Amino acid sequence: MAKKAKTLNELFHETLKDIYYTEKKIVSTLPKMAKAAQSQELAAAFKKHLRETEGQVKRLDKVFKIIGKPARGKTCDAIIGITDEGAEIMREFKGAPALDAGLLAAAQAVEHYEISRYGTLRTWAEELGMPDAAELLQATLEEEEATDQALTKIAESVVNAEAEHEDEAA
Amino acid sequence: MAKKAKTLNELFHETLKDIYYTEKKIVSTLPKMAKAAQSQELAAAFKKHLRETEGQVKRLDKVFKIIGKPARGKTCDAIIGITDEGAEIMREFKGAPALDAGLLAAAQAVEHYEISRYGTLRTWAEELGMPDAAELLQATLEEEEATDQALTKIAESVVNAEAEHEDEAA
Repeated sequence: MAKKAKTLNELFHETLKDIYYTEKKIVSTLPKMAKAAQSQELAAAFKKHLRETEGQVKRLDKVFKIIGKPARGKTCDAIIGITDEGAEIMREFKGAPALDAGLLAAAQAVEHYEISRYGTLRTWAEELGMPDAAELLQATLEEEEATDQALTKIAESVVNAEAEHEDEAA
Repeated sequence: MAKKAKTLNELFHETLKDIYYTEKKIVSTLPKMAKAAQSQELAAAFKKHLRETEGQVKRLDKVFKIIGKPARGKTCDAIIGITDEGAEIMREFKGAPALDAGLLAAAQAVEHYEISRYGTLRTWAEELGMPDAAELLQATLEEEEATDQALTKIAESVVNAEAEHEDEAA
């Protein structure tokens, strides 16, 4: 086991590359989602989160610096799958009344993936004795949780409006 | 738009098929994770969650009945991506000290995907006037949240033990 032993340090580094790729993917996806959104409130929320995400990438750059590794992503199948589902919604529900509800669901799936990753990384950073890294990761975790809650509120109002629309059409 | 209008009802049905596929995938993945886990506590947690997941599938069967559709899954790229990452951890960290930490991270990513899906479906069920479906979905949502919290606790103790192990080896 000695030579091939994979340690928590390596797992931390691997997972950091995973979330770095994820954030970059989100930076390229959010403008498309903002453009597709029918509700102005939702479009504004996506634009706001884009700016936040850019700041989150900068925090990750700092964490890479702390562990003395180059800031580099690694293809993450999970976020590809999650964003592919969002892209499918955009195609299949284009112009449809439920489009925004679908976009919100896709965005919340992304948020929850990030919440799980940042929670994990923050715990590992603490255990590995890197309080500065833990603090950076915690700051982003809190932003993601706040974004998820904001999206839940928009979801409730968007879905209410949509349900009323269906009632009228019925 | 009239003919092709995709409604919230359709989106609900699509997303129900997505989570049905997800739960079935988890039922087939959890035994492998329980077998791979080094800590008995973690293996027991995976086995417990397997039994819960089987109950969650039955709740979904009831929701399909409520909307009058056959219980059927639809390939979900997101969960495939998430579980593929878990499988990669099992391969790359086999026998390594950080294996359990990696398994926990993978399991929590799965939990968070489910939390986002069940939260969305529960909100839609309420808005679509299906209180019985909303209640079934809420029950599973609470189980998933409890599982995530239980895994966080195990993660803290597993990672502590692992960090100490690395200290000793250093």
